[in-house]
Amino acid sequence: MSLAAGIDVGGTKCLGVVIDDSGNVVREVRKPTPTADQLVATLASIVHELGEHTSVGLGVPGLISREGVIRSSPNMITAIEFPVRDQLAHALGETVWCDNDATCAALAEWQRGAGVGSRDMWMVTLGTGIGGGLVSGGALQHGAHGHAGEVGHMVVQADGHVCPCGQRGCWERYASGAGLSYLAGGIAGEAVIDRARSGDVPSIKVLDEFCTWVALGLANIANMSDPDTIVIGGGVMENADILLPRVQERFATMLYAPSHRVHPVLKSAHLGERAGAIGAALLHLHD
Amino acid sequence: MSLAAGIDVGGTKCLGVVIDDSGNVVREVRKPTPTADQLVATLASIVHELGEHTSVGLGVPGLISREGVIRSSPNMITAIEFPVRDQLAHALGETVWCDNDATCAALAEWQRGAGVGSRDMWMVTLGTGIGGGLVSGGALQHGAHGHAGEVGHMVVQADGHVCPCGQRGCWERYASGAGLSYLAGGIAGEAVIDRARSGDVPSIKVLDEFCTWVALGLANIANMSDPDTIVIGGGVMENADILLPRVQERFATMLYAPSHRVHPVLKSAHLGERAGAIGAALLHLHD
Repeated sequence: MSLAAGIDVGGTKCLGVVIDDSGNVVREVRKPTPTADQLVATLASIVHELGEHTSVGLGVPGLISREGVIRSSPNMITAIEFPVRDQLAHALGETVWCDNDATCAALAEWQRGAGVGSRDMWMVTLGTGIGGGLVSGGALQHGAHGHAGEVGHMVVQADGHVCPCGQRGCWERYASGAGLSYLAGGIAGEAVIDRARSGDVPSIKVLDEFCTWVALGLANIANMSDPDTIVIGGGVMENADILLPRVQERFATMLYAPSHRVHPVLKSAHLGERAGAIGAALLHLHD
Repeated sequence: MSLAAGIDVGGTKCLGVVIDDSGNVVREVRKPTPTADQLVATLASIVHELGEHTSVGLGVPGLISREGVIRSSPNMITAIEFPVRDQLAHALGETVWCDNDATCAALAEWQRGAGVGSRDMWMVTLGTGIGGGLVSGGALQHGAHGHAGEVGHMVVQADGHVCPCGQRGCWERYASGAGLSYLAGGIAGEAVIDRARSGDVPSIKVLDEFCTWVALGLANIANMSDPDTIVIGGGVMENADILLPRVQERFATMLYAPSHRVHPVLKSAHLGERAGAIGAALLHLHD
């Protein structure tokens, strides 16, 4: 039996898991995400605490090269051209696999979650921002330089809300947790959803607008890649019960030529906050 | 030596070619595109006139299923659920391969044109509308239902110009030949370009705006799939000398995190109006 270790480097915490051959999480370790200069030491200590393992994988937010170099990460702004994979491999004395965190989450949902059996799948994570990863023609896609899936910065309103990335109208300005708060005039996303649940009409209206933006981006994705399945995860989707039906309804009318085609299925992610770590643990099988 | 026949069904003409093993066009036949009820007869007569061949491929605009059924085609509105592949195969008594015309063009540029050697490539065709096709991880992508690459209907301005498809702000409303004319207040695209070449300042301004829209959509594509190469073809690119440098300049600033990554190369297509037919002839090798 193989015991694959995977660590997801998040904005606030690093989550490490060991999974068995069936994808079951058999051990788990959490530590706060340190500054970049302490990152390798923290990751090495997580691996040690995770104990026995046959491989190590790493999921990191931002632009990660195919060689496991952090080119630029929104959560770790001092980590530029930082060879995290090789430094961790050196510290551990073993091979380390590394990819973007959303690509890891997509891999996990495809192999062990909501996308099992899919040949053409997108996963999008609606969190503070929006991440993405994809499977095409039965293979996990990395892109030419490791950056495939950066769908949060797809421009959907060219003269829209300014994004910290420098562009205007990026999808994540409207369809992420931060986007929901923006649409609500600054009220926290969680509060908007709570109020909508209580029947507050203005909050329901904001929620409808939010779901229209989510659906618009998903329709763009579907028009471009024609997936059979789109898996939607991230913290925002903890409210899938109220969000997903609204998104599905809008998506069904926004897809190009909707009455002449088979629609992709929109599904909630199954693996929750562990998707990135489980996917990191699976990287050694899908490099 | 194999002699592969391919036919591209265009809005006004059907262009048939026979190519040899090196991709050279050894014979060519053109006929006006008929109405849907005459399509199979016309295609069969083109194949007969093309003469000796070892395979037959067909590129058709619109949503084409993996089984070669035209689900819906903007140029042939009466062709709905029309099994063109099987009907032509029956008429000819031989196997026929069939795919979307822009997917065929992408295949041709990848195998025999501007994208040779690429592993992750997009081709976009800027004509009256915008078509697209893609290669990911070294394989031509069809999507789950044969509709991958419908990038013209990616929404880039959610409250923008109304598109005949029913949405607002589709990329092809701004970045196609029709889009150029729209941005120029109704002046034909060709005339705008001629005037810009003569130094007419308002026309140069329109051209700059047009190139910004082209670059915006290409940046969206690059953020999502991280290709090494984007090949740009279609009738509009007959003016690549004046358009491509402007698009490249804007694209380089619009890509997400442009200073932290390797940029895809933006190239003009090499195969001109024959790309679709050559790609159709190559389909039998890339089903």
